[in-house]
Amino acid sequence: MNELWSGMVRRTDPYIPGEQVNGEGWIKLNTNENPYRPSPMVFEALQQALTSDLRKYPESDPEKLRVALAELHHVSADQVFIGNGSDEVLAFSFMAFFTPGKTIRFPAITYSFYPTYAALFNIAYERIPLQEDFALNAEAFYQSDGGVIFPNPNAPTGIALSLESLEKIAGENQGRPVIIDEAYIDFGGDTAIPLLERFDNLLITRTMSKSRSLAGLRIGYAIGSVTMIEALNRIKNSFNSYTIDQLALAAGVASVKDSDYFQTTVQAIIRTREQSRSVFESVGFKVLPSAANFLFVHHPDIPAEQLHKSLKDKQILVRHFSKPETEEWLRVTIGSDDEMGMFFQQLFDLVSAWTD
Amino acid sequence: MNELWSGMVRRTDPYIPGEQVNGEGWIKLNTNENPYRPSPMVFEALQQALTSDLRKYPESDPEKLRVALAELHHVSADQVFIGNGSDEVLAFSFMAFFTPGKTIRFPAITYSFYPTYAALFNIAYERIPLQEDFALNAEAFYQSDGGVIFPNPNAPTGIALSLESLEKIAGENQGRPVIIDEAYIDFGGDTAIPLLERFDNLLITRTMSKSRSLAGLRIGYAIGSVTMIEALNRIKNSFNSYTIDQLALAAGVASVKDSDYFQTTVQAIIRTREQSRSVFESVGFKVLPSAANFLFVHHPDIPAEQLHKSLKDKQILVRHFSKPETEEWLRVTIGSDDEMGMFFQQLFDLVSAWTD
Repeated sequence: MNELWSGMVRRTDPYIPGEQVNGEGWIKLNTNENPYRPSPMVFEALQQALTSDLRKYPESDPEKLRVALAELHHVSADQVFIGNGSDEVLAFSFMAFFTPGKTIRFPAITYSFYPTYAALFNIAYERIPLQEDFALNAEAFYQSDGGVIFPNPNAPTGIALSLESLEKIAGENQGRPVIIDEAYIDFGGDTAIPLLERFDNLLITRTMSKSRSLAGLRIGYAIGSVTMIEALNRIKNSFNSYTIDQLALAAGVASVKDSDYFQTTVQAIIRTREQSRSVFESVGFKVLPSAANFLFVHHPDIPAEQLHKSLKDKQILVRHFSKPETEEWLRVTIGSDDEMGMFFQQLFDLVSAWTD
Repeated sequence: MNELWSGMVRRTDPYIPGEQVNGEGWIKLNTNENPYRPSPMVFEALQQALTSDLRKYPESDPEKLRVALAELHHVSADQVFIGNGSDEVLAFSFMAFFTPGKTIRFPAITYSFYPTYAALFNIAYERIPLQEDFALNAEAFYQSDGGVIFPNPNAPTGIALSLESLEKIAGENQGRPVIIDEAYIDFGGDTAIPLLERFDNLLITRTMSKSRSLAGLRIGYAIGSVTMIEALNRIKNSFNSYTIDQLALAAGVASVKDSDYFQTTVQAIIRTREQSRSVFESVGFKVLPSAANFLFVHHPDIPAEQLHKSLKDKQILVRHFSKPETEEWLRVTIGSDDEMGMFFQQLFDLVSAWTD
């Protein structure tokens, strides 16, 4: 601590991202990265963008990418906001829609960046307990003073809410912001985008880091009513005029255009997820029903922390959250079939060694 | 305005960046971009970075780039903070070091993003008038309650402060943040970096957008005491874990390593600047002494707005700031010798037409 630090720094509670490792031989199932490379069209577009134009500023309000995403989602281009990863979009959303003194609600088990944003921007919050089966309790989000935010499907559980529940939450919070973080929606669950026609209090955030294999390029976006998008633009243009670089913009447009590659790789991950679920269950794990590119798993006998550690000793990373509500669980990203094969081989050994 | 907008959105006063144009034939002397392409080593590094690793997250705290910059500036790597352009670094600095209720000071004529940040984060400020000759009045920055921020050289004047004045400002504000925005320092003026050894209240911000021709890739950084850098990291890690993408990081490291190319292009711009100054003066312009990659110029007879417009009709963009203090001036970015040749040809015509 230091006399030079502002009050804002003093109240921060920084987010801790999943570990990144260097060097060969690691199997990384800890940060929900996509096991498949980005679309070949992305590499072509990047190749073409390596020009002397890099000396110039990118577009401040990236029109090409907004138009491509608007077409994809059947909305208008002024309903799309582009950000530097969905984390930046979420940070701007906390600034644009949540107000100190008005308590917001999010699930007790959820993306752990939400309380971090809340600490930074001094937003009071209530953590709403999940149901026994780890599903969201939709009714507990009705009539929230300051608005609500939750991922759908939720993280790290992977459980999705029905469109009916989403509609109820939007309708029961008219005049208050309802932010639905759809980082994982391409892997299952119903998007809330069709609800935008009737609810102008709804903002939907997305990322290209998971289903589009572009974590390395930092592209997120939001879709909402024109006035909510205008609010995000006012914040962004008071913060940083150019948040997405030229290369990321070119890659983003190319990725959106290659819907075949997108469908193929997403379907492959869903298939591997369902196979992996059976394998986990066959060795005694409880597995939550996941609509995402990860599984949240629990073994009744083997402590999760122990498993996490033993796997790391074998150069396999999975994610363990040490908070009391989740400390008995592991979140395992769906890798390629090869990676999952190697992962399960090690896991079988660990399980037999423990139960012997 | 909308009931869904937070108080923060309502008080925003967004920055308006210089116009970007598409299409051929334009001469862009309005956003202080570098006329030379990035170093060939940047393109090699980018080429090598186009791999399947783009599916993975970049480094959250980019070590390679911090180490390269630390070596360049003879500081330690934990004295370096990397951001998405120096605008993001400045935004984080407003969050990390300035506090609502403590009035900060910046020059009355300066980078117009400072009042925008101040509005966003609710920071009260005093605008300190420049001297008659447009130089900063250093003494007026002593003992500033909430700290100070100013560019050196100042923008859009281009005038630099002496190292002695910088030292006085740092010393007379012990325990209060002194942020020196060195976006243009590579084109002239004395950097405050040597003062870091004695003043832990000093933060220096830099960009790769101007002298390193990388505006399209969004790389900025700050150098300061370990505790000031820690404050910036706490803010960043409460906001967005990964702000710089893999390709920008690769380009940044390559640019720092190619110091020959950097020196050559910077010297070429300085040479063109000094030639351009003489040409402006030869047709009756007053030109401020610039240590930057632009000139701030005023013609006693021809209204600046008129010149700006007439040049635009000829597909030449320069920057005109319509605020009362600067409305009689134009900021002209130093382009290549060819671009300046074409610019002056048009300018001569406009000046003769006016004075005929």
